[in-house]
Amino acid sequence: MSESEISVTFEPQGRVVRVRPGITVREAATRAGVFLDYPCGGQGTCGKCRVKAIAGLSAPESVERSLLTPGELDSGTRLACRATVTRSVAVTVPDTSLLSTTYKILADSSGPIGASADPPVRRVLVEMPSPTLEDDASDFERLIRYTGPLTVSREILSALPAQLRRGEFRGEAIVADGELIVFDEGNTRRPYYVAAFDIGTTTLVGVLLDPAAGSEHARLSRMNPQTSLGDDVLSRILHARQHMKGLEELRMMAVAAVNEMLLELASQAGVTPQAIVQITIAGNTTMQHLFAGLDPGALGEIPFVPAISRSLRIPAKESGVSIHPRGSVYVFPVIGGFVGGDTVAGMLTTNIAESQGPVMLIDIGTNGELVLHRDGILWATSCAAGPALEGARISHGMRAAQGAIEEFFFEEDVRYSVIGDVRPTGMCGSALIDAAAGLLRLGIVLPQGLMLDPGQLPESLPEAIRRRVECDGNGTRFVLVDANETSTGSAIVLTQADVRELQLAIAAIRAGFTILLRRAALGLDEIEHVLVAGAFGNYIRCENAQRIGLLPHALAPSKLAFVGNTSLSGAHHAALSLGARERAETLARQTHHVDLSLDPHFHEAYVEAMFFPEEDATEMTPSGHP
Amino acid sequence: MSESEISVTFEPQGRVVRVRPGITVREAATRAGVFLDYPCGGQGTCGKCRVKAIAGLSAPESVERSLLTPGELDSGTRLACRATVTRSVAVTVPDTSLLSTTYKILADSSGPIGASADPPVRRVLVEMPSPTLEDDASDFERLIRYTGPLTVSREILSALPAQLRRGEFRGEAIVADGELIVFDEGNTRRPYYVAAFDIGTTTLVGVLLDPAAGSEHARLSRMNPQTSLGDDVLSRILHARQHMKGLEELRMMAVAAVNEMLLELASQAGVTPQAIVQITIAGNTTMQHLFAGLDPGALGEIPFVPAISRSLRIPAKESGVSIHPRGSVYVFPVIGGFVGGDTVAGMLTTNIAESQGPVMLIDIGTNGELVLHRDGILWATSCAAGPALEGARISHGMRAAQGAIEEFFFEEDVRYSVIGDVRPTGMCGSALIDAAAGLLRLGIVLPQGLMLDPGQLPESLPEAIRRRVECDGNGTRFVLVDANETSTGSAIVLTQADVRELQLAIAAIRAGFTILLRRAALGLDEIEHVLVAGAFGNYIRCENAQRIGLLPHALAPSKLAFVGNTSLSGAHHAALSLGARERAETLARQTHHVDLSLDPHFHEAYVEAMFFPEEDATEMTPSGHP
Repeated sequence: MSESEISVTFEPQGRVVRVRPGITVREAATRAGVFLDYPCGGQGTCGKCRVKAIAGLSAPESVERSLLTPGELDSGTRLACRATVTRSVAVTVPDTSLLSTTYKILADSSGPIGASADPPVRRVLVEMPSPTLEDDASDFERLIRYTGPLTVSREILSALPAQLRRGEFRGEAIVADGELIVFDEGNTRRPYYVAAFDIGTTTLVGVLLDPAAGSEHARLSRMNPQTSLGDDVLSRILHARQHMKGLEELRMMAVAAVNEMLLELASQAGVTPQAIVQITIAGNTTMQHLFAGLDPGALGEIPFVPAISRSLRIPAKESGVSIHPRGSVYVFPVIGGFVGGDTVAGMLTTNIAESQGPVMLIDIGTNGELVLHRDGILWATSCAAGPALEGARISHGMRAAQGAIEEFFFEEDVRYSVIGDVRPTGMCGSALIDAAAGLLRLGIVLPQGLMLDPGQLPESLPEAIRRRVECDGNGTRFVLVDANETSTGSAIVLTQADVRELQLAIAAIRAGFTILLRRAALGLDEIEHVLVAGAFGNYIRCENAQRIGLLPHALAPSKLAFVGNTSLSGAHHAALSLGARERAETLARQTHHVDLSLDPHFHEAYVEAMFFPEEDATEMTPSGHP
Repeated sequence: MSESEISVTFEPQGRVVRVRPGITVREAATRAGVFLDYPCGGQGTCGKCRVKAIAGLSAPESVERSLLTPGELDSGTRLACRATVTRSVAVTVPDTSLLSTTYKILADSSGPIGASADPPVRRVLVEMPSPTLEDDASDFERLIRYTGPLTVSREILSALPAQLRRGEFRGEAIVADGELIVFDEGNTRRPYYVAAFDIGTTTLVGVLLDPAAGSEHARLSRMNPQTSLGDDVLSRILHARQHMKGLEELRMMAVAAVNEMLLELASQAGVTPQAIVQITIAGNTTMQHLFAGLDPGALGEIPFVPAISRSLRIPAKESGVSIHPRGSVYVFPVIGGFVGGDTVAGMLTTNIAESQGPVMLIDIGTNGELVLHRDGILWATSCAAGPALEGARISHGMRAAQGAIEEFFFEEDVRYSVIGDVRPTGMCGSALIDAAAGLLRLGIVLPQGLMLDPGQLPESLPEAIRRRVECDGNGTRFVLVDANETSTGSAIVLTQADVRELQLAIAAIRAGFTILLRRAALGLDEIEHVLVAGAFGNYIRCENAQRIGLLPHALAPSKLAFVGNTSLSGAHHAALSLGARERAETLARQTHHVDLSLDPHFHEAYVEAMFFPEEDATEMTPSGHP
């Protein structure tokens, strides 16, 4: 693990997550899969997200002092959305702070991210009596008395007799998916790990996990290098079809990137990647096909059929992944050609199939995926949102990494917060949403998407904001951050073209939302929860997502919850639990695959969703309102 | 298949075996696992082994004409021990000719050697509708609708989408142990095979099988080349322990020999070895360890513990066996350090565990193995008989191959029959038994094993026989075949040293027999059947084996049955049936492993068995009696 990281434990859930100091309890909880209720959107105004910790958190903010009694503060009660973690801490979450009674059950029954009762990878310490004439069972039979049933390769088995005798029948077995992959004689206590990856079209995220404790030891994200050969799935499918070695080229790009991440994750834990014995991979169907080296050709033509829909287990050696040579790669089951393992992972981690009322899960990425559950029936679809919300195709967009602005606030002027407390380089998806929502509220951008010229701006605009609107030969743009504040020396701006790009992404996702509701014969008001997932920032501010129409602006804010990168946390679950893998297989098989392009109402829904909402039905805070 | 071979079908058993013309129906039946009763030892005197065939057999012999009525002969009734097959033929076996009511049930319930209901390797012809928008299941899901549940490697899966589309969703799947190992687009009907091997300490035997029909297409045997590094298991274990690369050297010797045999077997069927997709291996525990490359070190020291006792499945690539690159090797489960897969195979093929009364199975080879079944309890042991009965360590011994004398008859002079109808080169185990029994009956060899000098011979000896006893500086010897009749130009003789070697082999096996009876608290007369197995000739004449004490001379001859190479036929079963593999696993687990060297009565039993029996209690025929 990295020296600078600390661990945050959530009780009674028993989940542990390793993070850098300074993040909010809210973010740590989301990462740990503990979903609290933030009806005010995490502004510190509603006081709903109370947690308790004796020490290890930042000093209470003034909003906390005004909402909590001195007695509560003395006993360690805090607001998860405001308090930040300063050192390793145990945080207690009262039932009343969890997302809702319904959802609390979901989150709990989805199985802990933490120590699991049925880990795919486990270490067994073995200390056996030596064989005697009375007990002359074979070495392997003797071993499985301690480990339970196993399979074993010829190679491991061949060395076993001499190892057992040198170690006086003591040793450590590492068992992965029921196979004995390592036997160490004596008592080495060698550390070993598993890793979980979200393989997005634009972004790769990986975590290093201790399979025994279930704890997270390191986390990394980076750009998917396949982006250089096309920034959406279709362009990559075409590349694989049109070039002799195109598939292998794409596969090796992803594998090489994952290998670099594994090296860095392992080095943060002070080990080599050979200490990692298994990795799990969740991504959309095309990304998974490319990673596994499966021909994606049929994914590019009607009726968009995958090579395989169930999960895959690939030997590490064959996949090219540089982990333990007897390690393996688990690839998620998929629902269809365009609803992949990332969606299954999201369904797994939110346990949406167990919800009482209708629940929609929206995973916002380059491909947007939507899942609707009603009365035991599941529908899923995907839409080509494009990479805008992951920071690509946007003038100053970038993924949520150090130097990315993750939040914008519009008051008398524009304020922002940056990941890593450095000078900003660009903005990630959550900040893009803030920027667009802010400009809409200020009247600088009109509902149809037009950004006004400096001469057309509303009278009421604060002067500091007004002077940020510029116009030159390339069109109108809004200067979000002045050149002298950035790491690059260039201003960070939002252009008219950026707004148009965002409108396309929103329209695709909203049209999917509309079509799934239709399929389930549900009205928007009948939805009990909308769970918003995505890897595009630490969290999005839902009121801003509603202002720009990415989420329905007519939805009661209390029904919205941001559940983080559920593709990654599903991969995390699958890395730690065989039961989670079984549930994933069942979910993938049970879900109805809806092809939007075939739906007669899709075009209408898409066109309707192209415009931003006229009015701001969900305004929660006075900040930035014109 | 070889051009010169013919098929013999046994009804109602439905078993088919491919053989060279000229062998007796008895031998063909034994190979096919159809065990008839031959109370007279196959001399054509008792008339018990009646079978029926309309055409395809040799003309009736005089003994058949005297025992069968003209009406019987007209309807095709023959004696299996006399009639030889001349061309492909269907032979009907009446119930009354089978070994016994008890044993008939055994032989039948052991499952047919023939088409099996649960073949480990199968071909599935696939003709599927193309995917549509309404039926957009993945390619793999579509395939398994036709094949049933499967596993698949990344490599095969990767090519599948393009293959299915080129072949318009028609193709042929080859499934081995539940894994899709080949998919051919379109309709190629490529031939494919499996093979079964008996890996003996001295002799290797292999058969090529059609897994769909269950029929045998070719058969071969050869010397185990490991013999050059030691002719018994212990010397090979020592070689593996004492030389850096000793194990690998031994492994490669066996694998190279099997690869040569596979090449020849395949060429007899007109294909390459790549058409063979799976092989099964039965041998003693040490031979199996060496073949699989497992450290045999612990097999050479008390308490003689194997690395593993259950069956192994090794990818062909890893084992070095040159068959289909996605093929695999099945290695039999073993009972203990000295009772191996060959014994389990024998138990499987004779179905001894289902016998009503007590049954002993004796497998005579370089290691002799004995299994006793009584009332659901199984005991097994092994004894170091040495390679004499496989023709090694005997002056003119050889394995049962072309040029080997397989039978001696002592009348006015010595007569013999040779495998392959060529000039003799040496004698195999069955002929060695005949020779020793003949010389005992003639009084040339005394019960304690002494071969008399020419001057000490009994008066009654025919002159032609008397002149065959020679004596020179190397001791006494008996000239079985004169130099001018052999292929080598040297006489084939039996020496005093050969007789001593044979005595050691007999003593080891008989002592094992005695100890197992003691363990089961059984008297010899309580044994219902003694099944004699071995790869050392086409069959042995039980009355001769009893005369020399290899089989108890006090046993009623009707209780004896020669069941052929049961190690090979067990491997054959396992190549064709998953159920047979499951039964093998159960048998190996259930059987009590008896270590003779630990038995307090062993030494006494061994010394007692060192002498040939005093009198000829079982004499059946007048031939050659002094």
